[in-house]
Amino acid sequence: VLEGDTLTRVWEKTIPHLRPTVLLSSPRLDEALGPNGPRVAVATETFQHTGSFKLRAATAVTEHARARRLLTASSGNFGAALARAAARAGLACTVVMPAQSARVKIDSVRRFGAEVDLIDTTVTSRAARLAELAAADPEAQVVSPYDDPYVVAGNATLGAEIFAAERPDVVVTPVGGGGLASGLAVARDRLAPSVELIGAEPRLANDAARSLRSGTLCSNEGETGTICDGARTVSLGALNFAILRDGMADVLEVDDAVVVRALRLLFEAVNLKVEPTGALAIAAVLQAPERFAGKRVVCVVSGGNVDRAAYARWLGDG
Amino acid sequence: VLEGDTLTRVWEKTIPHLRPTVLLSSPRLDEALGPNGPRVAVATETFQHTGSFKLRAATAVTEHARARRLLTASSGNFGAALARAAARAGLACTVVMPAQSARVKIDSVRRFGAEVDLIDTTVTSRAARLAELAAADPEAQVVSPYDDPYVVAGNATLGAEIFAAERPDVVVTPVGGGGLASGLAVARDRLAPSVELIGAEPRLANDAARSLRSGTLCSNEGETGTICDGARTVSLGALNFAILRDGMADVLEVDDAVVVRALRLLFEAVNLKVEPTGALAIAAVLQAPERFAGKRVVCVVSGGNVDRAAYARWLGDG
Repeated sequence: VLEGDTLTRVWEKTIPHLRPTVLLSSPRLDEALGPNGPRVAVATETFQHTGSFKLRAATAVTEHARARRLLTASSGNFGAALARAAARAGLACTVVMPAQSARVKIDSVRRFGAEVDLIDTTVTSRAARLAELAAADPEAQVVSPYDDPYVVAGNATLGAEIFAAERPDVVVTPVGGGGLASGLAVARDRLAPSVELIGAEPRLANDAARSLRSGTLCSNEGETGTICDGARTVSLGALNFAILRDGMADVLEVDDAVVVRALRLLFEAVNLKVEPTGALAIAAVLQAPERFAGKRVVCVVSGGNVDRAAYARWLGDG
Repeated sequence: VLEGDTLTRVWEKTIPHLRPTVLLSSPRLDEALGPNGPRVAVATETFQHTGSFKLRAATAVTEHARARRLLTASSGNFGAALARAAARAGLACTVVMPAQSARVKIDSVRRFGAEVDLIDTTVTSRAARLAELAAADPEAQVVSPYDDPYVVAGNATLGAEIFAAERPDVVVTPVGGGGLASGLAVARDRLAPSVELIGAEPRLANDAARSLRSGTLCSNEGETGTICDGARTVSLGALNFAILRDGMADVLEVDDAVVVRALRLLFEAVNLKVEPTGALAIAAVLQAPERFAGKRVVCVVSGGNVDRAAYARWLGDG
């Protein structure tokens, strides 16, 4: 983990390339969470460049790159972010993506000139394909979207912004590989140590919840079909688990149906378009408002990139 | 028109109750407008309290109220805004609304404790019903959503924010009754006199375009069926026309089908949920990008309140 002056320097090199997060609250949102529910502020990264928080990590990585070519595997948002950050820094970039990724996410990677390497995740794992590519180009730097100290330090800039503006009791954040959650834990430890950090994870991919409960790093059996495509990661990264084991108070498992309700609530009460993974934190609060009764809660909306037709379907049903 | 120190004082009393506008740009949006198109920044009021710019006007009015009870007619957004501002200021409020208004807009007025008076606009005009209510309570203050110097001064705060952050060549804004456009003109005259102001109006309700062309105030024959329900106003206000006759360079008439394309483009390229009226400025640029070639353009997105089912339909079709 990067700490102290090193962390400060990473933040200083990263922040100028970011758009500040947008903090929103809404009486209608608080109403929907019940009369004794929490007062919620949403920290939305949907307007970050490339539409998700991942540009924070990607920028920290490209600002400290150890090679002229970067390789990564990503369900999409990290790929687009690394492609953009690499293009700005003059680095080449290849992104391994599941062939079933949202179309809009594949296009976003290609827009910035990166190469997209599509795989069938029922046949090959992303890790295996990444290892093949790395063996073919030993000079290239393999970048994990979460299990990397610069990724964690870059994502921590979001926590720095939140704690500069708000003094919540709890921060709730989506958890996939744990890069965002561990970044928030690092920022919290430095800037607001009394704030509780809670993860929100799809029940269909509940490796982080199991890992936290058991105290050992657990994995899902391959990638699951949750609509939260940013949280299909098979397990937390090793570095992320090391930070989150003591740094995160709890992980709440959320049903996909509640994620759809949260996506609609953000549409109706906050005028906010989010992707399913981005709705996880609000879904966790919707599912268990009593857990947050009377508290000031910041819910992180991690991103907004979602296919138009899929979103229309989630909005329209029921 | 309020000017000089009077305008400054209205701004000082109004701004503390507002959420600052959110300025967004996107390479994908600029791409969609063509290789020689404009560079666009969106100034979005979808996250303003009550979900539209109208809270600016409503706050200026309630901060300078001349009675304990306010009466207004509104297709919805001004109603919700005045209801909220009145509740905060401890004033009673009645809002005359077309019965066919979006459900979400009616609910938003009622949420703040205001009385909603629904009328069938094919039978009664809003003005006639408002006159009835005013006759029944001569003490009450009738508030126009646009034709009022405090409304114009309040809306001008949006221009103040835009010109503090950006120095565009052109500002494009939706036009209904002209309250927003004339507010922007007032701010422009004071802070950035070289900026061109252009209106965007539904072709189905093109009274402002005809008024500007002819130099006389024209009206539509009753309220039309454009999907831009915030711009169904029958004519510009007298004060607004007086300001806009010389203050607005042009009014572009936009087809509803292009409004739907603009709504989708804002969804896909900017992660922004907007109501049809809010998409008018982007639609005007989409419809005639050559008119804006090479220019720096700020497009005002006036609001984001729209029924979920209707939005899903516009997103999903085609």
